Amino acid sequence: MSAVERVRAAYARNAEAGRPEAWITLRPEAEVLAEAADVDRRVRAGERLPLAGTVVAVKDNIDVAGLPTTAGSPAYAYSPAEDAPAVARLRAAGGIVLGKTNLDQFATGLVGTRSPYGAVRSAWDPTRISGGSSSGSAVLTALGVVDIALGTDTAGSGRVPAALNGIVGVKPTIGLVPTTGVVPACRTLDCVTVFARELNLAREAVELMSGPDGVDPLARADAPAAPLDARPLVAVPTAEHLEGLADGWAEAFQGVVSRLAESGVDIVEVDIAPLLEAATLLYGGAFVAERTAAVGDFIQEHRDLIGTEIDPTVAGIVLAGTEARAADYFRDREKLDRLGLEGLARLGGAVALLTPTTTWHPTLAEVAADPLGANSRMGRFTNFANLLDRSALAVPAGVVDGRPFGVMLTGAPFADRTLAQLAERVAAPPVELFVVG
Amino acid sequence: MSAVERVRAAYARNAEAGRPEAWITLRPEAEVLAEAADVDRRVRAGERLPLAGTVVAVKDNIDVAGLPTTAGSPAYAYSPAEDAPAVARLRAAGGIVLGKTNLDQFATGLVGTRSPYGAVRSAWDPTRISGGSSSGSAVLTALGVVDIALGTDTAGSGRVPAALNGIVGVKPTIGLVPTTGVVPACRTLDCVTVFARELNLAREAVELMSGPDGVDPLARADAPAAPLDARPLVAVPTAEHLEGLADGWAEAFQGVVSRLAESGVDIVEVDIAPLLEAATLLYGGAFVAERTAAVGDFIQEHRDLIGTEIDPTVAGIVLAGTEARAADYFRDREKLDRLGLEGLARLGGAVALLTPTTTWHPTLAEVAADPLGANSRMGRFTNFANLLDRSALAVPAGVVDGRPFGVMLTGAPFADRTLAQLAERVAAPPVELFVVG
Repeated sequence: MSAVERVRAAYARNAEAGRPEAWITLRPEAEVLAEAADVDRRVRAGERLPLAGTVVAVKDNIDVAGLPTTAGSPAYAYSPAEDAPAVARLRAAGGIVLGKTNLDQFATGLVGTRSPYGAVRSAWDPTRISGGSSSGSAVLTALGVVDIALGTDTAGSGRVPAALNGIVGVKPTIGLVPTTGVVPACRTLDCVTVFARELNLAREAVELMSGPDGVDPLARADAPAAPLDARPLVAVPTAEHLEGLADGWAEAFQGVVSRLAESGVDIVEVDIAPLLEAATLLYGGAFVAERTAAVGDFIQEHRDLIGTEIDPTVAGIVLAGTEARAADYFRDREKLDRLGLEGLARLGGAVALLTPTTTWHPTLAEVAADPLGANSRMGRFTNFANLLDRSALAVPAGVVDGRPFGVMLTGAPFADRTLAQLAERVAAPPVELFVVG
Repeated sequence: MSAVERVRAAYARNAEAGRPEAWITLRPEAEVLAEAADVDRRVRAGERLPLAGTVVAVKDNIDVAGLPTTAGSPAYAYSPAEDAPAVARLRAAGGIVLGKTNLDQFATGLVGTRSPYGAVRSAWDPTRISGGSSSGSAVLTALGVVDIALGTDTAGSGRVPAALNGIVGVKPTIGLVPTTGVVPACRTLDCVTVFARELNLAREAVELMSGPDGVDPLARADAPAAPLDARPLVAVPTAEHLEGLADGWAEAFQGVVSRLAESGVDIVEVDIAPLLEAATLLYGGAFVAERTAAVGDFIQEHRDLIGTEIDPTVAGIVLAGTEARAADYFRDREKLDRLGLEGLARLGGAVALLTPTTTWHPTLAEVAADPLGANSRMGRFTNFANLLDRSALAVPAGVVDGRPFGVMLTGAPFADRTLAQLAERVAAPPVELFVVG
């Protein structure tokens, strides 16, 4: 298929899918088709474009030149003159950006409902949430509108919605993909992530986007990872930390563990309590002040918009860090460091921790009834990764009660490729897309 | 010489040197001689002890089992049951600890005068300061009382007193030597350092102390460094940042630069303004709250001792971080990251930055007249290193006006050995010790 044909198909699929809330800005089809025609010309002229005609959606906290960046807040919007390097690198490889996707405002949330642009519904069940914060990106990928979509991830925003929509979500090591041109949630923890239906395509996009850009001070060059052992060791949580999952998910998870063991992987059960305690620091202590530093002033200056253009739950979280003391941050940092050392030591040399990606898939009504509580339950297995500089990868692992169930591999920094090798052994075969919009 | 003979000589030399203020706790000679006799026995029995009989002093913010750790404050003192790993590893290699040395209280200072145990005087000139905060350790090494001494370094405390006393000060990459059992100044920036008269001995001690201990979450395994180029590139500051040095020091520095160039090193002049601006964040912003987190509560609870057992300048610095906001820390952190990226990029691929270690050598009276100002001038070239995760090495580089002049090499993390190779080309030949006490 030519790029032009793929773009046409994408717009047709988008109309068919009927999820307008997934987009914040959808570019005019004619404009995108002109770009696609240019890609086709370059390919015919012999240019090597590894992503030629790959249709891309970009979370609306990542700059695309000429389109507003809203971060989910109309009042915050600005018009970047340049693509974020992550976007520019995909475009340079032949990727074609269709538009900007809806998100939990300021990437604060795991639900996909915290947006004045509308609550994003699951690709599989419109009564349920999409997950977030990269809500629109995940849903549009799952529905086959786009081939890949960019998200971001600080607490699980690039993984939870992958699980709830039955797709792959790659959260690379912090700094591998520069965050230049990305609205910060927690600047030192944020990652650009990729959604795709196929692991290989997601990984290819990450590789293309990787490498310091000379602007992001936290960007890091990739570091060679050790090859996967012939018989790798993978850790799984003990039973107590697998309690409270959605009906059928514990059984589905055990199925994945069995499949992995049968593939020649040694499994070790570990107590992940220190990792879960570390995770609580992301919102429960002074770390939240990094969100305050990012957008607290904006919210303070626009307090009158809270409840309309500014999501009240998001505002509450961001402003909660206003009074936090720097000395308390340093105390929390020490606590985090100690919990990380203890928690990672318990993995006993395992190359990855395998967990469910999230714990349940609430309905829109359940989240509306308990915005903080419903969200908090969802981050059990994702919240600690960025705090402890982990790489992670979420893959679909089957269907339970007609909805996707996903698992996640979490590993050392720069273990991204190793996780992908392991993920090939556990990912369920791709599922046909359901369009239920 | 046997260990027993070396210990006897050390006590004799100590008596001769007449610098009681350099010690906070000096162990009874008989007790240390018994330990030395044991080392001699083990050597005779064929045990390999690379530091057999090496006489060691330990800064009094590092635990030595059975001796109080005061951190320069009698009220703070506690009696550790175990050696810090840094100390334990030297002792396991045959090192013999004579006692604990005086310091700027809570390792807060570059002068050596901020201690209720007395102002430590330069080994070369008793009217002038020793430099600090590792004051006693540096002076006792310079006077030949001990072979090596442990210090710590957050802002220059392991380098400035090396320069002012004409000895070597090695500040390894953060985390190479575990800081378990070290009273924190700024926990995430602190390094255990080594003073010696000979570079090789200092380096050997660092190698022996290196390696994660399973307790310090910030400990890092050494990483292989690239070998030194046949014609390495070394950066030096442009003239404007070499202004205001003590009389004769600019000329002495140029002499070192010439010597280095003649040894086959390419020299590039770089504008280090971003690095110097980064350095100001250590005391000028929310970073100081890491000191507050460490000992702020102690000082608050003992306010009545300020001016007697607690140094007023130190108390002022530590308590200045009490009100700092966590959000301001995150803003300062971003500023630091950006200045670091810019400043390090300007080094243009140089393997190290060569600078004077400090800027002047004040008298005790000059420091007493302006405790903060005199100190602040001294940290120009040292303050940014730990903030920006640099390795550094201070070496003697001659004598100006009868007092030592020292230079420093600052490089990437894990470039410790590379810096040592370069330092061999610039270090002046060891100078005979002056005992002027």
